[in-house]
Amino acid sequence: MGLPLTRDSVLQAHELVKPHIHLTPVQTNTTLSILASTPQSPDALKGTQWEGQTPAKPNVRLFFKCENFQRIGAFKVRGAFHAVKRLIEERGIEEVRKTGVATHSSGNHAQALALAAKAFHIPAHIVMPSVSTPSKIAGTQAQGATIHFSGSTSQERETAVKEVIAKTGATLVPPYDHPHIILGQGTLALELQSQARDLISQNKELSVGEVNKGLDAVITPCGGGGMLSGSAVALYGTGIRVFGAEPSFEGADDARRGVEAGKRIESVKTLTIADGLRTPLGEWTWKVVSNKSMVQGLYSVTEEQIRGAMRLVLERMKCFVEPSAVVGLATILYNEEFRHMVERAAGDEGWNIGVVFSGGNTTVEAISKLFAPVIDAKAE
Amino acid sequence: MGLPLTRDSVLQAHELVKPHIHLTPVQTNTTLSILASTPQSPDALKGTQWEGQTPAKPNVRLFFKCENFQRIGAFKVRGAFHAVKRLIEERGIEEVRKTGVATHSSGNHAQALALAAKAFHIPAHIVMPSVSTPSKIAGTQAQGATIHFSGSTSQERETAVKEVIAKTGATLVPPYDHPHIILGQGTLALELQSQARDLISQNKELSVGEVNKGLDAVITPCGGGGMLSGSAVALYGTGIRVFGAEPSFEGADDARRGVEAGKRIESVKTLTIADGLRTPLGEWTWKVVSNKSMVQGLYSVTEEQIRGAMRLVLERMKCFVEPSAVVGLATILYNEEFRHMVERAAGDEGWNIGVVFSGGNTTVEAISKLFAPVIDAKAE
Repeated sequence: MGLPLTRDSVLQAHELVKPHIHLTPVQTNTTLSILASTPQSPDALKGTQWEGQTPAKPNVRLFFKCENFQRIGAFKVRGAFHAVKRLIEERGIEEVRKTGVATHSSGNHAQALALAAKAFHIPAHIVMPSVSTPSKIAGTQAQGATIHFSGSTSQERETAVKEVIAKTGATLVPPYDHPHIILGQGTLALELQSQARDLISQNKELSVGEVNKGLDAVITPCGGGGMLSGSAVALYGTGIRVFGAEPSFEGADDARRGVEAGKRIESVKTLTIADGLRTPLGEWTWKVVSNKSMVQGLYSVTEEQIRGAMRLVLERMKCFVEPSAVVGLATILYNEEFRHMVERAAGDEGWNIGVVFSGGNTTVEAISKLFAPVIDAKAE
Repeated sequence: MGLPLTRDSVLQAHELVKPHIHLTPVQTNTTLSILASTPQSPDALKGTQWEGQTPAKPNVRLFFKCENFQRIGAFKVRGAFHAVKRLIEERGIEEVRKTGVATHSSGNHAQALALAAKAFHIPAHIVMPSVSTPSKIAGTQAQGATIHFSGSTSQERETAVKEVIAKTGATLVPPYDHPHIILGQGTLALELQSQARDLISQNKELSVGEVNKGLDAVITPCGGGGMLSGSAVALYGTGIRVFGAEPSFEGADDARRGVEAGKRIESVKTLTIADGLRTPLGEWTWKVVSNKSMVQGLYSVTEEQIRGAMRLVLERMKCFVEPSAVVGLATILYNEEFRHMVERAAGDEGWNIGVVFSGGNTTVEAISKLFAPVIDAKAE
């Protein structure tokens, strides 16, 4: 079942995927770092458990890893290319070309796997609910994949993918719960670590205290947990703390709740606007995410906080992201538990925090839906 | 009245403003270059003068100068810093600090001038219509400027600015119609020229035919004409052709119409969604823009074409831009006159075209308004 989950395995994965992916930029933004270092207004805490308390005043400098500029618009190509290249190593390219790869997904993983398969002239079978949006179907077909339609429940989709595999002999490449996927996604944390270090050493404004201090922490969104657990594996032993962020809406914070209860939550039914984070942790990702020495904390944010962070990233950074991408930033800006923790741990010197923007696959219509109600409320 | 309008003056301006501005990135995007090199569908030409004709098939590679990532979110800081530094040279810093600078603007120029003034501890007086959106007023105040409110007609604004000048002795820094502003804005074309050359020499996929061929053409939006005339001055004598793009809505294409008629159109009343391009050319910018050896052509696009280009830049490039920023790209994608011209002039080898994204100062609410009607139409 693949390589051990170690930083060394992520370094190896990086060598394999590097030629196929973009080295996405790491950006800084003075306004956002200042905002994150400013206490929230007492009003913002009204109606929360923090009401009436002194708002936290963490001192942070933020480094944004922009995976929205990645190929297919999301980090998912990292895991997909890694899984496909490992499969070719194991079985030989001829065998893999005969049988192909398969997955069920309506999102970024489908396009990522289709792209990786196409790069090696391997057939890709993607099971998608027949109710998927036409643009997603077209996007996946444009990568040369064969689409198989199914019903929309997860059971119907799994049955459909099993049928495809039985018929074709294709190998299942799951969206997150596999060591090769986890190690592939972890490569973004290696890049973030070294890009942030370069930025800090080039820019005096960013260096505080010790010369060439690198990142103190990284925060990533957590849905199925591939990116979070990959980042935790990649940074294990470096001294860089790793945190996960989730939406809280309708129980989407399954990782946080599961770790609190000491037991993985196996199913989640949420319609959070962070639609890439609606899935629960898998068995492999749970092992990493629930290990306190690997992931130091999990935090959740409301839909309104996600919208607020998204507005800032669009309007201030001029960077087009999907809602799932900004839950890490929303945590830094609005989650008082996280902010108090950073204030205590980082002290006056503050922390350099790497913040992963996971992807940018949304549409102007979706943005309109997210922000249109605000207009109406103002107009009234 | 300032330096001569020559490339050499732009090079001097660049030395002056460089320490104060960002070197904004030049980006390429395979999808958009391919789209621009693909003939439009016959359906897209229905109802236009090109209906029934063979759609043009230009061969282009696009290089996007992202001034939306510039300080204050738009190219306007270039001209503002240049004008302020020249004023300091002429009058001495003490004198300028005593009297200050003034302008009337509700847009990007107000914030740019406020920022430039603040950098040298110079008072800035900004006349804004009292109906301006609160966020713009707050943004300008945040730069430390003194806001003077006026009525919203251009006459009321000009009267108000005259009163402020009479009272304070401040020097008027106009938004576009001044040699120092024109030369300042032209610095973006110098950067675009050399950044595109570097990209082409580093990337085999971008070089076609001769090795290290640079840009063949540059296209910029044209409102008051500061950026277009500055770019034309900067690139004069390099062999790089310069084109301007305007919205056609309600006569916003005053430059194109004026040049055709051989006479500057002095007033325009349009509510085009490209709200940065609602102003007519000034006297100085007209001299450059109407000179065929400096600006080789002017083209206009519809509101729908601006929306279409904006969608592509947001969704595909993941780059947050304002509607005014994309009229150049819209021309390349949708204006058959431009596309036929490029097809003829560039032949099989094609052109490398520099496309200026002028700014990114819009809001999620504005995006919602621009694209919400599409949702309604689909829902019905």
